[in-house]
Amino acid sequence: MSNIIITRPLTATDFAPYGNVLDCSGNSPIAINQGDCNRFDDLADLDFTDGRAGISVFKSKTCNFPYDLKLVERHPLGSQAFIPMSHHSFMIVVADDQNGVPVNPQAFISKAGQAVNLHKGTWHGVLTPLHEPGLFAVVDRIGTGDNLQEHPFKNAYQIQQG
Amino acid sequence: MSNIIITRPLTATDFAPYGNVLDCSGNSPIAINQGDCNRFDDLADLDFTDGRAGISVFKSKTCNFPYDLKLVERHPLGSQAFIPMSHHSFMIVVADDQNGVPVNPQAFISKAGQAVNLHKGTWHGVLTPLHEPGLFAVVDRIGTGDNLQEHPFKNAYQIQQG
Repeated sequence: MSNIIITRPLTATDFAPYGNVLDCSGNSPIAINQGDCNRFDDLADLDFTDGRAGISVFKSKTCNFPYDLKLVERHPLGSQAFIPMSHHSFMIVVADDQNGVPVNPQAFISKAGQAVNLHKGTWHGVLTPLHEPGLFAVVDRIGTGDNLQEHPFKNAYQIQQG
Repeated sequence: MSNIIITRPLTATDFAPYGNVLDCSGNSPIAINQGDCNRFDDLADLDFTDGRAGISVFKSKTCNFPYDLKLVERHPLGSQAFIPMSHHSFMIVVADDQNGVPVNPQAFISKAGQAVNLHKGTWHGVLTPLHEPGLFAVVDRIGTGDNLQEHPFKNAYQIQQG
């Protein structure tokens, strides 16, 4: 099995098994504020077990290609949305689950103006902005209990820009 | 009473009666991802009556100074967070409540990298980005019931840049 992953563009269809793409496409907006603003309504499947939604701000180092994917993690008790606070693309790494083990990791590259919401329990890489300032608002679960599982790969994958 | 409002910088202290400022200052972050990312945790007082949190995307026209403030609105059933999806400042207009009537409107200008969360029921102006693309993620209440009250001013206020 190759350990090379080639990035591909983020689309709602391809990303559907892993989460929602939050952007201004794909549904009809509601015109508000006397038509000065369009509301693309309720785009994320927020899902929290024994906890509540919260908003945090993440400031992350940027990453470069080729990128060594050494581990993925997941949050069994809640969805997690990553909203870039700059008009830049970023990389989103996800993987399928096979009996509790992450398999088939994939790397998506967003367009500027897109955010994502990962479904509860989805294996994913750490935050990988491609541009400064690496600033994100994150909507995820606030609560007690163990909401983090990490899975280091025995052999790192190498992600290359598609 | 003058109908001129001069903008002032957004600070957590000055904004406290109206909501939260969501940024990377003012509290100690949690280091995550082997130290590559700082999490400024749980910054918003989310508060929803008979509903749930949702994430929507707003695409708004930008505004210019002097700005005519013709109305404010409020959402009696939920808090509302405005997260800019570009690294730009924006204007946030709020007002005090006096027996159901908005009084003492004020205008704050954020710094790039700041978002806000308005407390439930806070009188506020419509979204007023100062820069393209005018794109925001909004975390507010999803649910039925009347969650919008609008108050047009008899005489518009004029907002001038401070």
